[in-house]
Amino acid sequence: MRGGGLVVDELEERAPLAGQVSVEVLACGICGSDLHALHHADQMVEMSSVMAADAGPLAPKVMDPAHDVVMGHEFAARVLEVGENVGNCRPGDVVVSMPVVLDPGGVHAIGYSNDYPGGYAERMVLSDVLCLKVPDGVDPRRAALTEPMAVGLHAVNLSRLTERDSAVVLGCGPVGLAVIAACAAMGVESLVAADFSPTRRALAAALGATEVVDPSTEPAMEAWRRVDGRRRVVVFEAVGVPGMLDEAIAAAPRQSQIVVVGVCMVPDTIRPMVAVGKEVNLQFSFGYDPMEFAESLRRIAEGEVDVEAMVTGEVDLDGVPGAFEALGSPDQHAKILVVP
Amino acid sequence: MRGGGLVVDELEERAPLAGQVSVEVLACGICGSDLHALHHADQMVEMSSVMAADAGPLAPKVMDPAHDVVMGHEFAARVLEVGENVGNCRPGDVVVSMPVVLDPGGVHAIGYSNDYPGGYAERMVLSDVLCLKVPDGVDPRRAALTEPMAVGLHAVNLSRLTERDSAVVLGCGPVGLAVIAACAAMGVESLVAADFSPTRRALAAALGATEVVDPSTEPAMEAWRRVDGRRRVVVFEAVGVPGMLDEAIAAAPRQSQIVVVGVCMVPDTIRPMVAVGKEVNLQFSFGYDPMEFAESLRRIAEGEVDVEAMVTGEVDLDGVPGAFEALGSPDQHAKILVVP
Repeated sequence: MRGGGLVVDELEERAPLAGQVSVEVLACGICGSDLHALHHADQMVEMSSVMAADAGPLAPKVMDPAHDVVMGHEFAARVLEVGENVGNCRPGDVVVSMPVVLDPGGVHAIGYSNDYPGGYAERMVLSDVLCLKVPDGVDPRRAALTEPMAVGLHAVNLSRLTERDSAVVLGCGPVGLAVIAACAAMGVESLVAADFSPTRRALAAALGATEVVDPSTEPAMEAWRRVDGRRRVVVFEAVGVPGMLDEAIAAAPRQSQIVVVGVCMVPDTIRPMVAVGKEVNLQFSFGYDPMEFAESLRRIAEGEVDVEAMVTGEVDLDGVPGAFEALGSPDQHAKILVVP
Repeated sequence: MRGGGLVVDELEERAPLAGQVSVEVLACGICGSDLHALHHADQMVEMSSVMAADAGPLAPKVMDPAHDVVMGHEFAARVLEVGENVGNCRPGDVVVSMPVVLDPGGVHAIGYSNDYPGGYAERMVLSDVLCLKVPDGVDPRRAALTEPMAVGLHAVNLSRLTERDSAVVLGCGPVGLAVIAACAAMGVESLVAADFSPTRRALAAALGATEVVDPSTEPAMEAWRRVDGRRRVVVFEAVGVPGMLDEAIAAAPRQSQIVVVGVCMVPDTIRPMVAVGKEVNLQFSFGYDPMEFAESLRRIAEGEVDVEAMVTGEVDLDGVPGAFEALGSPDQHAKILVVP
């Protein structure tokens, strides 16, 4: 990302510092946040600053869009070379990592850093202690989905959903699909998913939704009332466009929880009166913790979550700009992988 | 309330039906919602309709502002006459009741009903089973505060506040003061309250706030960081004007809970990006349940909560229109009681 556009160029390779390893990228998913960062870097910087304000010295440095950023934070990679004081990884290991890297200067967000390249590259540098080995025989293309699937797992963990409840997922992009997989893994019996795209509805069903609806034909909450309507329901808002939250509040049953996992980047209007009258609980969700990241890899590696179907395209580095274009009309795609 | 204004007039008295009792009003608090109902009846009706949509056959009938409404839902009263099948109340009992009354036609919201008068009246009709006896020796003027204090107790019960946490209360009107009292009763050690009014700040301190601030001098969350800043914090938004919620989200620490107990009646704008980045939890709170109402009376009756100071004025029925005027500039007042 250079000057608000995408270019493919040669950059100098970083040598691993002590505690770091140098890796060869095997696969890296393109995330909606990357499209957003490209077109609305200012909002991305604002959000990073908000989060940094509370994190103190452990906050990742906020990127400067005026300088080069190699994006890509959903990667699987093979270790090439290890720095000093490395005890976890060995050359040849296939690994995934939470997209942060540590050095004496602090914490850097891989994919949104001016200092460390992300996964849309041939080479990266990772922190040894954060690397998780991908078990032998597991396709790195599947392991690369550890990160987005962890986002869904975290949202479900943060919610008050139990296996006795029902769930409604609004939006079946990668985040919504990850939420669906996490709900299904919990054993939720009534799991309603809504998306305008037939492709995404098919993916929702493949990942465990028990009822999939086109909201232009039947609103999601009406579908839930039709197929369940009895159990407590948790609604996951995974669309993230203005107006969705207010719509979800208006449609939710009394005292239900709405988990906001789709990031609406612009100010949004709600009717507090309606939310108060229903005693709605809004839980905003972001990211995941290291345990959830590790659990996400385990579920993929052991075949408990079949992420294969989510990959709807694959490009090399020269194909990244075109893939960003293709994801601009998201109906045809869920996840596009970059394979350098 | 007649034709958008307040009038004092003679109405025909209702006789108690089976299961009902006729009472003489001893004291009735004026609630901010009543001021709102007078000036924005349409919004009040909309809110009632929202709540009714989920409550099914038990939803109170929604008032029609085109017909007379005798408001007043924070009352203490003396039983005059009992209908058939009454086993709880006897003539002479001083009682409080949740502001609903049952009859064969359904549930009626006392104070917002065209069929049953509220507490700004000499006589009312209550449901025998909902009446709670006010213990001998307890001033009915204090018992009348059972209802608003229950609103604060419910908000605290609905929150995830424990005695190990700290609390910040934004706004020290009657709702904020009730929240402060409930937090103090829980034993919360750091309890920061903010209000522009010196009168209300003094009340906040009297009810148990450990730190009171004028937000024009020091923002509430900064005061919390100064006096505590370590413990988990629950923020209670008891102002209910547009912009307060977004401000609370922006000021709240990561992963904190904001309980919305002030009802902002107009659409309000938030930045979901900020809420997501902080993983804020927003709990909207409304009303109370019968156990909380009874507990609220017990706390007042046993002197655990000193509500005396909250009463900043007292009027007779002819004084109600003037009291509504006086409450329009709320700095001087917390609770005005109507004593017919």
